[in-house]
Parts: sequence; C-alpha cells; structure tokens
Amino acid sequence: MSAPLPPPRPTGIGLIGAGRIGSSHARLLATRVPGARLVAVADPRPGAAAALAEPLGARPVADVEDLLADPAVEGVVITATTEAHADLVEAAARAGKGVFCEKPAGLSLAEVDRGIAATTTAGVPFQVGFNRRFSPEFAAARAAVDAGRIGTPHLLRSLTRDPGLPDYGRVPAWAIFVLTLIHDIDTLLWLNPGAEPVSVYAVADALVAPEFKAAGLLDTAVVTIRFDNGALATAEASFSATYGYDVRGEVFGSGGRLEIGGRPRQDLALFDADGRHADTPRGDVELFGDAYAAELAEFTAAVRERRNPVVTGHDARRALAVALSCIVSVRSGGPVDPAVVAGTVDARQS
Amino acid sequence: MSAPLPPPRPTGIGLIGAGRIGSSHARLLATRVPGARLVAVADPRPGAAAALAEPLGARPVADVEDLLADPAVEGVVITATTEAHADLVEAAARAGKGVFCEKPAGLSLAEVDRGIAATTTAGVPFQVGFNRRFSPEFAAARAAVDAGRIGTPHLLRSLTRDPGLPDYGRVPAWAIFVLTLIHDIDTLLWLNPGAEPVSVYAVADALVAPEFKAAGLLDTAVVTIRFDNGALATAEASFSATYGYDVRGEVFGSGGRLEIGGRPRQDLALFDADGRHADTPRGDVELFGDAYAAELAEFTAAVRERRNPVVTGHDARRALAVALSCIVSVRSGGPVDPAVVAGTVDARQS
Amino acid sequence: MSAPLPPPRPTGIGLIGAGRIGSSHARLLATRVPGARLVAVADPRPGAAAALAEPLGARPVADVEDLLADPAVEGVVITATTEAHADLVEAAARAGKGVFCEKPAGLSLAEVDRGIAATTTAGVPFQVGFNRRFSPEFAAARAAVDAGRIGTPHLLRSLTRDPGLPDYGRVPAWAIFVLTLIHDIDTLLWLNPGAEPVSVYAVADALVAPEFKAAGLLDTAVVTIRFDNGALATAEASFSATYGYDVRGEVFGSGGRLEIGGRPRQDLALFDADGRHADTPRGDVELFGDAYAAELAEFTAAVRERRNPVVTGHDARRALAVALSCIVSVRSGGPVDPAVVAGTVDARQS
Amino acid sequence: MSAPLPPPRPTGIGLIGAGRIGSSHARLLATRVPGARLVAVADPRPGAAAALAEPLGARPVADVEDLLADPAVEGVVITATTEAHADLVEAAARAGKGVFCEKPAGLSLAEVDRGIAATTTAGVPFQVGFNRRFSPEFAAARAAVDAGRIGTPHLLRSLTRDPGLPDYGRVPAWAIFVLTLIHDIDTLLWLNPGAEPVSVYAVADALVAPEFKAAGLLDTAVVTIRFDNGALATAEASFSATYGYDVRGEVFGSGGRLEIGGRPRQDLALFDADGRHADTPRGDVELFGDAYAAELAEFTAAVRERRNPVVTGHDARRALAVALSCIVSVRSGGPVDPAVVAGTVDARQS
Repeated sequence: MSAPLPPPRPTGIGLIGAGRIGSSHARLLATRVPGARLVAVADPRPGAAAALAEPLGARPVADVEDLLADPAVEGVVITATTEAHADLVEAAARAGKGVFCEKPAGLSLAEVDRGIAATTTAGVPFQVGFNRRFSPEFAAARAAVDAGRIGTPHLLRSLTRDPGLPDYGRVPAWAIFVLTLIHDIDTLLWLNPGAEPVSVYAVADALVAPEFKAAGLLDTAVVTIRFDNGALATAEASFSATYGYDVRGEVFGSGGRLEIGGRPRQDLALFDADGRHADTPRGDVELFGDAYAAELAEFTAAVRERRNPVVTGHDARRALAVALSCIVSVRSGGPVDPAVVAGTVDARQS
Repeated sequence: MSAPLPPPRPTGIGLIGAGRIGSSHARLLATRVPGARLVAVADPRPGAAAALAEPLGARPVADVEDLLADPAVEGVVITATTEAHADLVEAAARAGKGVFCEKPAGLSLAEVDRGIAATTTAGVPFQVGFNRRFSPEFAAARAAVDAGRIGTPHLLRSLTRDPGLPDYGRVPAWAIFVLTLIHDIDTLLWLNPGAEPVSVYAVADALVAPEFKAAGLLDTAVVTIRFDNGALATAEASFSATYGYDVRGEVFGSGGRLEIGGRPRQDLALFDADGRHADTPRGDVELFGDAYAAELAEFTAAVRERRNPVVTGHDARRALAVALSCIVSVRSGGPVDPAVVAGTVDARQS
Repeated sequence: MSAPLPPPRPTGIGLIGAGRIGSSHARLLATRVPGARLVAVADPRPGAAAALAEPLGARPVADVEDLLADPAVEGVVITATTEAHADLVEAAARAGKGVFCEKPAGLSLAEVDRGIAATTTAGVPFQVGFNRRFSPEFAAARAAVDAGRIGTPHLLRSLTRDPGLPDYGRVPAWAIFVLTLIHDIDTLLWLNPGAEPVSVYAVADALVAPEFKAAGLLDTAVVTIRFDNGALATAEASFSATYGYDVRGEVFGSGGRLEIGGRPRQDLALFDADGRHADTPRGDVELFGDAYAAELAEFTAAVRERRNPVVTGHDARRALAVALSCIVSVRSGGPVDPAVVAGTVDARQS
Repeated sequence: MSAPLPPPRPTGIGLIGAGRIGSSHARLLATRVPGARLVAVADPRPGAAAALAEPLGARPVADVEDLLADPAVEGVVITATTEAHADLVEAAARAGKGVFCEKPAGLSLAEVDRGIAATTTAGVPFQVGFNRRFSPEFAAARAAVDAGRIGTPHLLRSLTRDPGLPDYGRVPAWAIFVLTLIHDIDTLLWLNPGAEPVSVYAVADALVAPEFKAAGLLDTAVVTIRFDNGALATAEASFSATYGYDVRGEVFGSGGRLEIGGRPRQDLALFDADGRHADTPRGDVELFGDAYAAELAEFTAAVRERRNPVVTGHDARRALAVALSCIVSVRSGGPVDPAVVAGTVDARQS
C-alpha cells in the first residue's frame, strides 16, 4: 500500500478592510477554507483590525504596508472602501502577493487596467469578487448552458433586491450600477458565453428614498443589454426589499429555459388559516455563504498553485464597462455602445 | 317561503371568425358561459362556419351582414383577422350589438377611436380580449395591489413565451408588439393603477427564425416602460418556447412583491433517476381556458345588463398606444414618449 | 367537403338530494357538462328542490317516485343522505335509469351488492362518485404508473384534510372511514393496479373535537394497508385543517416517485416582511370543480352510450370493503384481513 | 475601547472508525467545526486511519486504547461498526472523554443504559448522532411547534428514502428500524414534545431486493406510532430511491401544518420540451452536510464547556425503544406497547 498523500501546505492570506464583508471573508478564511491560513488583518480604524483578527488567531495591523511586507502573507484579500480598491490592487501586486479584490476592482476602466497590468507584471493571480459564479445554482446554470441544454441564449435576466441600506443619504449615484448591478451584469455576460455587449440602456430613479432624489440618489434601476449574438438581457435592482435579499436569474434559449434562485430560507413551509408561508433569505452572507467560501477557496488555491483563478481582472473589466455605460445611458437618456463610452467615464465623476 | 328566482334569459351571441381562437370562444360560449346562447357563426371560408356552428347548435352564415341583421344576436364576438377588427367593431356597433373584440381592437389609435365612438354612439358595451385580467392569479394580484399588500409599485414585469408559430415567413413585423406583447403591456398598465407610461424603449430581433430577419421578422423582444409614478416596467416576449406556453408576471413595491404564474400542467411531480420532473402548460387555451370563459361571461352579462364591461375600448387604446410606441422605438433606436408618437403610427405601415 | 357532424342528443338527468354536493352537481350538469340536460331535481324538504331546480330550468319534485317515473330522465344522480343510497340505487335501476351514486354506494357490502345486482339486471350504467380519479393530477399519476414511469409501487399514500365540520356532535363514528377515507382508499387501490389489499390496520381518535370522544366521534385517522404485491400504503385524514381543503398523494416505486397535490389556490405568491405567502384551496368544489364536472360528463356519456362508466359499482365495493375493515380494526385494536371481515360489518352498527 | 476577546482554546477530538460517515465527520472536524482540533483517528484496518488522518494533520492509530490514552483527546467521535458502539461508549467514558456516538448508541436498551451510566459516572457529555435536529428546516419546524404555530400536533410523518445499498445480502433484518428509521422515530418524538409513544405497529418487506427476502431482509417499512397525547404518527422508509436521498416530514395540528424537506439539489430549474426539471439531492452528506457540521460543533462545545449536549443518551434510548418495538411488532404481526416490549429485545437476536 502506498503512503497517504501529505496535507496541503497552509497558504497565508492577509485581509485589508475589516468592514461587514471583510469580517465575513476573514471568518470564512479562518474556518471554512481548507488550506488557507488567515495571517493578518489590516484596518486603519483603531481596534477594528484587532477585534476581527485576534479571535481568529491572526495578527492585526493598522498599516497596509505592514501587511504587504509580511512574507507569511502570500495572498491579499481586499475588502477596503471601494475608492481604494485600485491602488491596493496595484500595491499588493507590486509586493508580489496574489490579489483578491471585492467588486468593483476600480471605478474606471483605467483603474482596472492598472490592476491587470500590475498583477500581470508581477506574475500573481488577480481575482475579483463575483461570488455568484460560485453558488451551486449559478454554477449549474452555466454548466447547463455549456452543455447545450437550453440551446442558444435569446433572453437573459438577472436581478438583485437588497434588504435595505442604513443611510440612503450617503449612497453615491453610481452605487446601484457599480456596486450592485455589476453582479448582475457579470452574471449576464457569463451566462451568454462568447458574446459581447453592443448596446446598453439604463433607466433609474430614487423610488425607495425619494427624499434623496434631488441629491442624485438612484435606488431602483432597469438595464437592457443587447449582445452581438442577438441575445437580449435585462438586469434589475432595488436597494430595498421588505422580504429580504433576493437574487434570481433566467436564461431562455432556443432549446429551453433555466430559472435560477428564489428558494426559501429553510426547506420548510407553514400552513395556517392565512394559507401557506415560508421564510425568505435575509442577507447576502445567508444566501451566498457557501459561494463566498468557495470563491476564497479558489483564490487560495490559485495563490498556492501560482495560476489564474477562474474569475479574473479581465472579467472585472468587462462587467465594469457595462456598469459605467449604464451611468452614461442614464445621463444621455438613450442606449449607448460600451465599446465607445465605457472608457470615457470615471464613476466618481458621475 | 318566497318563490325561487327565475333563471336568466339567455343572451344571444354571434361570433365572427371561425379560426383557432374563434373556435375556442364559440365552444366556451356554447358550453361554459351560463346565460349565453351561441346563435350564429360567420366565416367567409366555405364550410368553416358550418363545421364550428352546427355541432354547437348555432346557425352558420357566410356573410357578416347576415349575422349582424339577426335580431337574436345581441352581442358579437369578433375573432376575425386582425386587419378587419376595426371595421367589424364599427359595423357591429351600428347594428346595435354589444361588441367583444379580440385584441388588438385596431392597428392604429384612429381605428380604436372609431370603435370607441361607434359603440358610445350606439350605447352598446365594448370589450377587448385582455383575458389575463380574468385569470385567478392575475385577478388576485391586482386585488393585492389594490389592498396595498405590496405598497407602491416600483418594478413590474410581464412576459409571454408562445409555443412556436407554424410559419414565421407570414408573421408581420408588428405582430410581436401588437398581437403578443399587447397582453403584457395591458397587464403592466393594469397592475400599476393610476399611472401613465411616459417613456417606452423596445429592442427586438429575429432570433427564433433568423432566416426571416432580412424580411423584417421580429420574434423576440424586450420593452422597458417608465411610468409617471416612477415605476419601471419590463415586458418580454418570444415566439417559441420549447417547453410550451409561458406567461408570468411580477410586481415589486415598497411593501413587498407579487409573483404570478409558472405553475406546472398538472399538480403532479415525477421523481426518477434524472431528478424531479413536471409537465408544463402547452397552449393558451390550456393555461387560460377558465379566463377565456370568464371574460366571455363578463361580456354576456354586460350585453344583458346594457353596461360597460370591466375591460373597455379605453383599455384597448391605452395598451395599443404603448405597443405602437414600441414599433417607433425599434425604428428610432431610442426611447419614445407614447403621448407624442403613438398617434403617428399605423402598424400596417411598420 | 363532407357535412359537419350533428350535435349530441341531450341526455336527460335527474338529481335526488338538493344538499351541498347535490346543488353543486346540479349546477355543473346544467352549465358545465356538454350534452347533459338537467331535467328534474327531487328533495323531500319543502322548497329545496324548487330553489335549486328552477333557476337551472329543471323541474322540482318532492317525491323520488315522480322523478323516477319521468321518461325524460335517462340517468339519475344520487346525492341524498348516505343511509338512503342503497335503496335509491336499486329503485333507480329498477326504473331503468342509469345510476350515479355519491360515495359510499352503501353502508355494507350487502347494500352495494344489491346495487350491483339491480343495475346489472337492468342493464344500466352504475357509477360511484370517486371524483379524484377525474382530476388532472390523479389521472396523470395513474397514467404514469401504467406507463411504468415509477416501476413497481412499493409505498403509497393518500391523505385528506377537510376544512372543518359544522357540528361534530352529529358525525357518526364511521364517517371518517366510510365518507372521507373511502376516497383515499379508492385512490390507493387505483394507483396500485392489479393488487388486492390483504391487511388493514387503522388507528383513530377524536382530536379535533375531543368533547365528543365519549360519544364515539373519530375525527382523525391513520390507516395502513398491505397489498398482495407487497406494496405498503397509508391513508390519513383529519376533519379540520385551519388552512382549508388538502388532498395529496404519493406513489413511490422501484423506478421513481410521484407526488400529487398541494398546489396553492392561485398561481400567485406574495412576498412581504414576513416572507413568502400563498393562499390555499378552501373547499372540495374549489379544488375538484373540474373533476366533478368530468365525472358527471363521463356518467352522461355512459348513459347516452349505454355502457359501463370508468368507475363502477365494483370499485365502490372494493373501497367500501377496506373502509369497513378499518372499523373492525379500530374495534379489535389490530390488523384485519378485508376478505375475512369486510362482509361481517354494517357501518350503521359500528 | 476594551481588548478583543481571546480566541477559543482548540478542543482535541479523536475519531474511532474511518468508514464512510467517519471520514465525513473527520473532514468536518478538521475544516468546518471552529474550535475543534482533530487529534487522532483510530481504525483497525491497515492504512485506513492513516489515509484519513494524515491529510487532515491528525495522528493515525490502529488501536482504540492508544487513542483513549491520549491526553490531547478530550472528546471521542464513535463511527465504528454498529455492534461495537456500546462498548466504545463505555470505554471512552471510563477514559474521561466526552462521547459522541453515531446512532444507534446500542442494539438493546441495556446497552444504551450502560453508556448513559458510564458517561454519567464519568461526568462527561454523551451525544448521539441525530443530525436532522441540526438541519435548518427541522430546527425551524421544532421552533414553530414550540411557538404554537400549528397548535397541538395531531398527525405527524417522517420518511427516509436512501439512494440504495451496495449489497443487500449483508444487511441485517433490524437495519431498517435501528439504523434508518431510528432517525425518523427521533424526529417524530422530538416534534411532538412532551408526549410518549404508547403503541407501535410496523409492517415491512423485502421489495427492493426480494431475492433476499427468504434470508430475512427488510428494505421497505411503514410504522404507525400512537402517542399519549392522542397524536398519530407515521414513519416510512425504503432503502432504494432511484432519485437519490429523500428525507421529509410533516406536522399537522389544531392550528396548521408544517411541511419539511423536498428541496431540489440546487436552486435551479430547467425547462425543455419535456417540461420542467430539477436535480435531486443524492446523498446524506450532500443533504445534511451543514447539519453534520452543526452537530459536531455542538459536541465540541459541550466537551469544552463540560455540559450536556442538546441531544443526549436519553434521546438515544427513547428512539431505540420505538425501533426495537418495531422489530417486535413485525414478528408478532400486531401493535405493541414500547414500555412493555422494548426492554425485552436485542436487535442482534432479531
């Protein structure tokens, strides 16, 4: 009998940004990602890094440079504020670390291009946080498309309804496209493999919090995307669903249809005098906890194996181009060609 | 003890057009609509009227004038070819008959206006065949909106997937908007009560039968409608779903969400080595048989009671205005205002 | 071109018993069963026959003999009180009428045998009201069994939950087996074709209305049936479901599984802060309206064509034998063999 | 700002039995149970312990005594062969280790009593592997019962369909009750809190593999349990479902109904020319992976905190008493009282 295989060498991961999603990612790295070792957590806010890192056996640091200088850190997970993403990607790559960046990887194509260039030059993996691709249902949907189960895609849809935000007064106008719908856009691009978007039309409004409409808030949006293979796609978002967190998709093609999402919170139904009831998922970590763990496992493996992850900076760029085109479309009132307009806009200036 | 109430006096109905939907309507009138009596069926094709009418105990006529002159005919159901609808509505009204017209009630607003004027002048009911309003699920959805169960509508969607057409070479370019999506448009207008559409954007293509694209076929379409109450709506159609006939809707609002449709053919699931399976509805008569019977019962009652039906020529005009705007939007490549463009177009010229 | 076929000659039906289900059947015969003509309604209660018959254009009679003597009555639908079923079946058969009898067709095997003998002698159809066989889902389930889709049945289940009764003090002890579970028993026998029940075990209690337990009420029951092909089946009933009327079934076999029933009232779901909600069917006429119409159409056709219907007195006898065996099992506290015990019991004496 | 809380001290766990479920538990302990440290794996088969332990960073041992003597082992997870469970529980308790034992905790009440006595004497936790209690849907169902959402339970059901066994010739007759249905029995006892079973009736047969019927195989069973609060319960099992692994439950009460289980493998549906399709869960680790992790986390916490777990040896005893009663019922052909018969039987002698 042969000797058993050795266990994997633990791969050291550092995390930058101990906010809501950063805390979730840190815990997953420490407990749910086999082969990952959470080495350090950086956050400039006093105490934030320690409160997250220490119970997980990791080292808290206040200064990103400190984390990037740590030789035990082989890969960096960036969950800092959106505006800092691009600079952090570049800095991490220059330090020779593999890079996982929460979406978006930048607020302009130029920013994402800097990250792609830096990680390519450094020869390190560059993954972006399109977690839905790692959920069992979206992964199985893509596999069904690849297997030809629904023929050629004709009509696609992806939608997100968030369970509400704490302060609509602080939400930038671009958030619904660049932070939320970028997930749906990536899903639509990914489920229509080989096709390129040729036209983008977006309508948006402040319907959830109309009191911030004058200040520019957009909390509800519908996007139509036309692809070069003829497929027509819709992305839809609202910042506030009373019933929780809701992500669904559909691919309709020449051979059939895929319907993704909509499951209840538990596999349980209650029947009473008012009819049939089931609870609904309430948040992204609840709905996509396994997907978050799976994307971090993929990143950890890519770092260990020094290879490209399955979701790259190129995917980040493609989705951002459409999201930025939505901003231009809202401004212009008509459809736009992403190849023409996406490079002209920085979300910050929108 | 008081005497029992008398039975209803049977109301005589004549039907014009013994095609597919006309045959279905005739059978429903003869067997499923209490108080209706199918008196006569008109169709110019030799034998068509007789083949439908006689087994149902009705009189076949070749000539519409003959049917309209019959005093036993109190209401007329028009299921003739689309191009003839407007003239038939007018003729029936002038003959003093109540009018039920399959959608659309005309191919331009002017045509529908003629019908409204003629029926108003004659003092007869004028109903249009928006049968979905009579299905239990759509009716319950509207009741839920009226009861405030989902608050203010923010995002709406209605979609139709037909089970395929016999000959795509004979389908006019306007059909997807004026024959199919007009149902979805009516649904969206109806489920967002009190709001008016202010912007319409449509994209469409020949994806099902691309060999007829050069000839102008549009078999797949997505429409975005913006309402004056801020709500954003999407209508979506394909002429060919491998899995049958598929009509679904959604209303998402400040207080919740309604999801309409998607039930299997029977309340039965089969589990085998390949997983879980259920059959799907295969046609409109199968899915909306009860709704067709209910709309004809409403028409019969409106004729008997000499009152407006719950779906009127005004509803026909509103939905047609949006459908015609879609044609203009496809032609112009951008969003259009129905109040500006709908009156300028005749579907025949598109 | 050949001449169109003639319409069917209307078949005259008389109905005995203008109670809840009788009223429903009468209305279906008058409005939903093509080819049926409701000729007369008999009920001994003053005014009851007239209140039902006259609005439907039928003749009210107080005396059953009057109805049976009417030559326009070709078939009789018996929806009288259960205790009278057997005598009425016999009387109708002797009068040469086709017989449809609501379940049960008698309260002992001897009673049902009298009906079988009388209808056989008279050469008239004899159908019993096992309406579930005519619902699309149960019919499709049986078709799937016949097609071998689930292989050999191993485990079967059928259950009924009624929406509550007006007065539990007037419910005889045998009602749950002979009035309610007889439906489930027939379903189980029918979905396991070719097999005979060899053992029946029943447990039952007064859980809904325990105040009538001392008086003998049984309102909740579970039955286990063992078949000669090895299959094991369960039937389950409660007289009071807060959420309405609930009928479901399952057939599990060597090749797969069928799951029948459980659909919501409409094809509509509401999502709000408490999760996902759907309304539930509230009554038998609501859930099985189409099935009731279909069984009456089958009866009407059998009368017209002078043939056996698809559900016969023999089916009535088989299901009653198991229902009576349940009574014996409850009394004896152990499993019983229907072939041995069913002939020994009259439900009235239980 | 206060200092962050320290991380938990890792709790050392040893595992006995590197079979299918042992391997799954070992991997969960090593990767999914925060605060647990898999210290050692024992298995007498050459190489089995090493193949499992080493990739997980644990020490393989051939001899159980070796594992029990290791001071780093604070709790022991017993996934050895069923017949060895009782002795191993006792040995682990005597060594002062917390004990988690896969179900059943013994093959007679006397065996389980030995384990309860030994763990009580040693003052160590004793948990049994009723994992379903830790699944979100069953846990939420019990919470709904406790909250009075369905009133008093009247009818309960729990069922298991395994995806098939490799060799039916090696399955002991008692397996379906003591290995499989013991899960369903525990579920029924747990979902009817405060009630005791007073009567048990079981029917069983060899329908999946009838060629082993003569050798005593039972692969299909239905159990009826009557409780002292009047509730009637059914448990149902088959060893072979073509469609995978299927666990469902139902609690019907005076106030409503709970329906547990039945979800598809992914939250994805495919529609094609044959209708609607979804994949089904294929195994227990797939369906209950989270529940297995949660029960091991509870055990680890109980060991660390030196307290009783939420599922104890007492629960093991109650469920086994009913499972053993099923064996007696099958033998006797009638219902039995667990209080009378359960203590008289050893599954090995059945």
